[in-house]
Amino acid sequence: MPERVAAEFDVVGIGNALVDVIAHADDSFIHAESLVKGSMTLIETDRAVSLYQALGSAVEMSGGSAANTMCGVASFGGRAAYIGKVSDDELGRVFGHDLRAVGVAFRPGMPEQHTPTGRCIIVVTPDAQRTMNTYLGVSSLLCTPDIDVATVAAGQVLYMEGYLFDRFEAKVAFRHAAGIAHAHGRMVSLTLSDSFCVDRHRDDFRGLVADEVDILFGNEEELLSLYEVDSFDAAVAAVRADCALAAITRGPLGSVIITPDEILVVHAEPVEQVLDTTGAGDLFASGFLYGFTRGLDLAECGRLGSIAAAEVISHVGPRPLVELHKLR
Amino acid sequence: MPERVAAEFDVVGIGNALVDVIAHADDSFIHAESLVKGSMTLIETDRAVSLYQALGSAVEMSGGSAANTMCGVASFGGRAAYIGKVSDDELGRVFGHDLRAVGVAFRPGMPEQHTPTGRCIIVVTPDAQRTMNTYLGVSSLLCTPDIDVATVAAGQVLYMEGYLFDRFEAKVAFRHAAGIAHAHGRMVSLTLSDSFCVDRHRDDFRGLVADEVDILFGNEEELLSLYEVDSFDAAVAAVRADCALAAITRGPLGSVIITPDEILVVHAEPVEQVLDTTGAGDLFASGFLYGFTRGLDLAECGRLGSIAAAEVISHVGPRPLVELHKLR
Repeated sequence: MPERVAAEFDVVGIGNALVDVIAHADDSFIHAESLVKGSMTLIETDRAVSLYQALGSAVEMSGGSAANTMCGVASFGGRAAYIGKVSDDELGRVFGHDLRAVGVAFRPGMPEQHTPTGRCIIVVTPDAQRTMNTYLGVSSLLCTPDIDVATVAAGQVLYMEGYLFDRFEAKVAFRHAAGIAHAHGRMVSLTLSDSFCVDRHRDDFRGLVADEVDILFGNEEELLSLYEVDSFDAAVAAVRADCALAAITRGPLGSVIITPDEILVVHAEPVEQVLDTTGAGDLFASGFLYGFTRGLDLAECGRLGSIAAAEVISHVGPRPLVELHKLR
Repeated sequence: MPERVAAEFDVVGIGNALVDVIAHADDSFIHAESLVKGSMTLIETDRAVSLYQALGSAVEMSGGSAANTMCGVASFGGRAAYIGKVSDDELGRVFGHDLRAVGVAFRPGMPEQHTPTGRCIIVVTPDAQRTMNTYLGVSSLLCTPDIDVATVAAGQVLYMEGYLFDRFEAKVAFRHAAGIAHAHGRMVSLTLSDSFCVDRHRDDFRGLVADEVDILFGNEEELLSLYEVDSFDAAVAAVRADCALAAITRGPLGSVIITPDEILVVHAEPVEQVLDTTGAGDLFASGFLYGFTRGLDLAECGRLGSIAAAEVISHVGPRPLVELHKLR
């Protein structure tokens, strides 16, 4: 096993590199387009085109779950890197710019031809819920050779996004990345991303969590889906057996931090007006990981997570608009 | 002269088709990048790249002065069309989508190869002022064959954007469009767009205004530049001799509507918090033109202009976020 050296990065994220296309619509649009409110649906090119056509004016801003988290880590003052695939097109350049602009080291992997940068069409309803329709484009082509070994080896915590699990090559790449991290004495974390995604790949998620994951992120629904249980208590019992640490968000109820020894309840930060819940879980993870990699106690890690989540849901867009270190 | 038929459109706009790239920065950034706060500067590819690199995270949304105005007209419930050039690239598709999404008929002109869709890098400072750096791309290639004759002939008022004046072919196209409009018994309006642009092309602007323009839009600074006078009174006297109607904005002071017979002062609508003045003049023109083409009296036209301007400066972005007809 290589010698464990000082980490260049606090957190290294791997995820679907997506530009968000955000538009407002009311519930009748959700109904007319047969969308499932609050869920993430993978769509193909044709559907992406028709859904976009049906939508009103939209705003484009960089997104992608793990990328949002890395921006949050950087915004707290942490050192973050990100591995994800974009194409050499306008949205790809936008995505790279927005990472570098906040100081996240970007590792875009190998170039690909003829597959555009992925995008996530997000419909925000008046209740501030977001319904996501993701055209993955080149982002989903992530595979083992895209994992920059030196970067993963240099990160105190590896952070992987469950959304990538929809493709076999990405699962292999995750195992590979986790192996590199552990071989260099680093920790491995995973966010479950979406209960439907967990449902589609439950066995693979269960295997990865049991074998490789040191810190598990997710929301209550995703955790229930992972362990196929009906109660939060049963899910907590199950995750305790699998992971050293889990941080599970529960929306307005805050979050619960679970270790084999304790269960810590962290309150949500008050928000004057919730405008768009996009990125809430991503930013919770950023605050938690920033605190964790700074050696703060778990209650404080959870508090930083709540602060970051509160900031991002108080405006439209999946990344912080203020420097999060100023909110501590 | 062809018979004057019922107009299919209330307003037909011609302008630089641009996607705005909006980022926040403080005054030190303005200084470090040698920008002139509040102005519009034309930039080339290299500068566009370096400025974008220096900027923080940005949001992309469709802009373009006359296009913003047409969206405002549509948002009031008016029938608008827009002529402007985009490329077959992602930003071009975004631009077209956002026009069609609000019901503006889009006439993109002839396709061009190898020149990307134009973009305007807008730096918003904490005082809500915007400093614009425009890479015109394909938008500035607008020339006579791009002017869809049937569309111009079908619009009650033609609305042309002074920004396009930086290229000779566009000046020719403007004369051509104005000729079509007048030949079909339509009215011709022009917005001066920018005092520096007026300064660069004063004689051509003066000629166009004297020969063809029935309704002139602009702000106080632009009007002073057009007539090379020092006082607003002198500028008013000059424009009265040239145009049947002028609507001149004065920021927080509201606007002044000038005809040979009267000078009407219209107050600005109160705004709780000014967040971004991008699009203020564009949206004033939209309200004014909507009212004008509906046959409302000039005071009411001015009031609708003020309402639309107030809406757009109360949030980031150059186009209304609410349906303007609801604010009447």
